[in-house]
Amino acid sequence: MPRIHFQQQLAELKDKILAMAALSQQALDACVDAYLQRDAGLCEFVRDNEKAINSAQRELDEMAYDLLAKEQPMAIDLRFILAVIKINGDLERIGDQSMSIAARTMDLIDCDSIDLPIDIDGMRNCAALMIRTALQSLLDADAQIAESVLAMDDEIDRMNRIAHEDLTKFIQGHSALSAHALQAIIISRNLERIADHATNIAMDVIFWVRGSDVRHQLSVAID
Amino acid sequence: MPRIHFQQQLAELKDKILAMAALSQQALDACVDAYLQRDAGLCEFVRDNEKAINSAQRELDEMAYDLLAKEQPMAIDLRFILAVIKINGDLERIGDQSMSIAARTMDLIDCDSIDLPIDIDGMRNCAALMIRTALQSLLDADAQIAESVLAMDDEIDRMNRIAHEDLTKFIQGHSALSAHALQAIIISRNLERIADHATNIAMDVIFWVRGSDVRHQLSVAID
Repeated sequence: MPRIHFQQQLAELKDKILAMAALSQQALDACVDAYLQRDAGLCEFVRDNEKAINSAQRELDEMAYDLLAKEQPMAIDLRFILAVIKINGDLERIGDQSMSIAARTMDLIDCDSIDLPIDIDGMRNCAALMIRTALQSLLDADAQIAESVLAMDDEIDRMNRIAHEDLTKFIQGHSALSAHALQAIIISRNLERIADHATNIAMDVIFWVRGSDVRHQLSVAID
Repeated sequence: MPRIHFQQQLAELKDKILAMAALSQQALDACVDAYLQRDAGLCEFVRDNEKAINSAQRELDEMAYDLLAKEQPMAIDLRFILAVIKINGDLERIGDQSMSIAARTMDLIDCDSIDLPIDIDGMRNCAALMIRTALQSLLDADAQIAESVLAMDDEIDRMNRIAHEDLTKFIQGHSALSAHALQAIIISRNLERIADHATNIAMDVIFWVRGSDVRHQLSVAID
């Protein structure tokens, strides 16, 4: 029963991408907690977690390539495997962005937390919700759920834009705190990029389920 | 002669990815010239060019998917097509980063150029050389040329780090010019990200030619 075996392998690939996603979600949560609490231990955790993400990515890619080479899948199965390869790349980049946030946090680790005009926690929650929703759409093969992620992206773009403006003004009035404010601007951009990766994942799910490419049909705001 | 036809299609895919790359290279050159010369017309060009990049990306992806579905290639041909799909994504992201530089430039379009402690032109030349070299390695199927790109990435990371430090200090002494300096920090990061995409392209060429995955075997500095 080779086809049944193949379907089992596809199910295993799905399990693996969800396990990979759990690592990326952990990275996002830990790096923002590390920033908010100035926690060097959590930064260390993000670094260790990054190694696990990189191994998981390589393993997943190899499994996907093997399936393509040996099973020569057609139509929806081919699209699923290609979507997994792309989603895998986006999850790994979420890990990279989280590492960047942890690096920014280490630069500030000995400084007290100060009140800045930016809602980092709110932006993290928005990005995390987008990732969760994109994964739900993958789990359920549901293009409609995936579409809801695309709408959420506007909200975090708006938050990033406002934070950038407010922090730029803040720096002009508080030059002694400019290094802090600069790091916050960069972290805001990291979170906005993480949300972009969640959007890419949602678009890959739509491509898999519907067979149509939604990229560039909507205007993605690049900041 | 279906195999000959298939080889022709692979050659066509290579031509298409090089044409796509030319658009991304143009975007990088134009956005940095736009910034250095405060040229709104060049920003407009980058925006138009971005539409061409997005169409080219979609067309290339569709051709690659069709080849995978219809020809069911094995081994090195399969790896080549998968590499093209990934390189295509990286070239499109170079376009995105160039759009971001054009957007930052438009924010400053009515302001005179000021002397800032950053070598944007030098960083652009470094990133452009990395892209050119990565494409050369693709054209020649030469993993050794591709490896030379990985070494160049350290140099632009260093330039970005120094620019970040120098501009942070600059802001502390010149708070009235902080908005200018902030944009320069963000553009510096955009250029460093563009170089990362060139590195990704080089790694995909190595994967194609050698069949081994070099990712994460070297420690990529994430800033």
